[in-house]
Amino acid sequence: MKRRNFLKSLAGTLTLTSLLGSSRDLPAKGKTEYKWKMVTSWPKNFPGLGVGAENLAGLITNLSNNRIKVKVFGANELVPPLEVFDFVSKGGAELGHSGAYYWKGKSQACQFFSSVPFGMNAQEMNAWLYYGGGIKLWEKLYDKFNLIPRPAGNTGVQMGGWFNKKINSVSDLRGLKMRIPGLGGEVLSRAGGTPVTLAGSEIFTALQTGVIDATEWVGPYNDRAFGLHKAARYYYYPGWHEPGPTIECMINKDQYNSLPDDLKLIIDVACKAVNLDMLSDYTAKNNLALQYLKSENINILKFPNEVLTKLRVLSDEILKEISLTDNITKEVYKSYTDFQSNVKPWTDVSDKSYLNIR
Amino acid sequence: MKRRNFLKSLAGTLTLTSLLGSSRDLPAKGKTEYKWKMVTSWPKNFPGLGVGAENLAGLITNLSNNRIKVKVFGANELVPPLEVFDFVSKGGAELGHSGAYYWKGKSQACQFFSSVPFGMNAQEMNAWLYYGGGIKLWEKLYDKFNLIPRPAGNTGVQMGGWFNKKINSVSDLRGLKMRIPGLGGEVLSRAGGTPVTLAGSEIFTALQTGVIDATEWVGPYNDRAFGLHKAARYYYYPGWHEPGPTIECMINKDQYNSLPDDLKLIIDVACKAVNLDMLSDYTAKNNLALQYLKSENINILKFPNEVLTKLRVLSDEILKEISLTDNITKEVYKSYTDFQSNVKPWTDVSDKSYLNIR
Repeated sequence: MKRRNFLKSLAGTLTLTSLLGSSRDLPAKGKTEYKWKMVTSWPKNFPGLGVGAENLAGLITNLSNNRIKVKVFGANELVPPLEVFDFVSKGGAELGHSGAYYWKGKSQACQFFSSVPFGMNAQEMNAWLYYGGGIKLWEKLYDKFNLIPRPAGNTGVQMGGWFNKKINSVSDLRGLKMRIPGLGGEVLSRAGGTPVTLAGSEIFTALQTGVIDATEWVGPYNDRAFGLHKAARYYYYPGWHEPGPTIECMINKDQYNSLPDDLKLIIDVACKAVNLDMLSDYTAKNNLALQYLKSENINILKFPNEVLTKLRVLSDEILKEISLTDNITKEVYKSYTDFQSNVKPWTDVSDKSYLNIR
Repeated sequence: MKRRNFLKSLAGTLTLTSLLGSSRDLPAKGKTEYKWKMVTSWPKNFPGLGVGAENLAGLITNLSNNRIKVKVFGANELVPPLEVFDFVSKGGAELGHSGAYYWKGKSQACQFFSSVPFGMNAQEMNAWLYYGGGIKLWEKLYDKFNLIPRPAGNTGVQMGGWFNKKINSVSDLRGLKMRIPGLGGEVLSRAGGTPVTLAGSEIFTALQTGVIDATEWVGPYNDRAFGLHKAARYYYYPGWHEPGPTIECMINKDQYNSLPDDLKLIIDVACKAVNLDMLSDYTAKNNLALQYLKSENINILKFPNEVLTKLRVLSDEILKEISLTDNITKEVYKSYTDFQSNVKPWTDVSDKSYLNIR
């Protein structure tokens, strides 16, 4: 705690600026008014996620012409990956880059702002967040934690994971030890499997040595970097458990409110730009990594429909149950599921129909 | 022409700023250095497209804290919608908001930067533009016109259009008089139909009076606003001819280059944020409009596979032909079609697979 208080006192230091020159390139570079820290749940410069955090910090710094200078800290550099929320809440850092499903201990509602099983894809999530009341509810949820949330990235639809044996029916899930956190893990558990929680760095060895039978991670781009194709033979799709997780930027509310309007807007817009940019990065890189995995003769297989149908029924059950845990989760669940029901017919005649006939 | 020269002399006026105060809210509001015009190809505040132009202008103005103040002009307020390119190229306005397929008279290559029949959807387009070399090629294409292009919006997959009779087979396209501009129109023509070019404001009456048998426009949100459901009975999907058109912001290159780096970045990032924002807006609003159209008992029908297969063969032929018209089109065609071939397997196992099993 002492370390935290020390960091807290350092954070958000306001460097006073004096008069600026009259040159056209106003305000002069290097006149830093705010030195801000961004803690993240990703290893420094981790492909996709960590690069997104760096991009966000760079945009805020450069759009503000150095008035806010943001320094990024990878997981464990200042705090462990799963303490980002509390650390930013208490002002240890002004910014955090993470995923809202990590904070289900605060409220189950958090999970709807990243991804839920059989939920909305990236395009639908953005429509809900920006134009369907999603961000307003998210702000309401984070308000008592002294945080302001913004969407700031998306991985797109993930892969279903790596398996050391084929999944032919629901019975193959029974007894399956799989690294799959969050709601996906609860669904697996209800289907008879054993969800295991492991940090990213532990997955490869656990899978290769048979400590686990299967793992999900992200998609071809990140999975290849971890060498998971050297530890398991079967690569399943689609990622029913994470169909397009939103990545979040959380901002300490006191610090945010202390900014002039243009700097607030710079943070908001930088988050929105990184939201699109990360999805574009993943889309381009997953494609190349998938080609590589195919060239390595990995078996890329679709989950059987019977399995997916069962997982969907269990997911719906679980989402309904968690919606009853507190008032805000009930409200978020209703907003999310209503929007999804309404947007699905449009997705069906637009993207789904088009991708099927192309 | 005199009018243009007069406007040119007014454009890009540099308002000199003097010393700024030392208050925290630097730089002070209202110290405008650049008064910029944005001409557009849309009616002022037209849902989706015109609102996107206003949002873009607002973001540039507010992110720069009024250092650049952008004023939007709807179609025909300063220039007709299809003269936006030349007007910004010559410096009559600093910014233009439009669609690149309107400029095929400059080079057929332009069309690949909006949308081509059976081409990439919004997510794939953004991956190509930002991470597949697309924007670099687009800059090369626009360079000799003294323009810098940026993606600044997307409508998502459009609808196939409104028809006064059912389309059961390819033979139903023969003799069909349909308002469908650009490459879609060329495909229809090769299938035996008669493409007609009409401004948006003329479509409703032409369709209602039988001057045309069919029309495409955008999607439920815009089509409902035009009342097209009162002029035709059958609403077909998917929009094979425009599967996610990118909307562009073009910037006069001399004016862009005269800006300090932070203002250049503000324009780039504002465009990226509006690119995502417009797609989110369309996704949310199309969904509501589709519900309304269903409640009005509109027949919402999928084109028969036989028809789509034929249209795709014709589209491929036409794209190959236009790729030979000049060197830059050849280069853009290769980059676009290579990226699409490579990204398709990833889209198949991610979004397509997920949307099919959800």
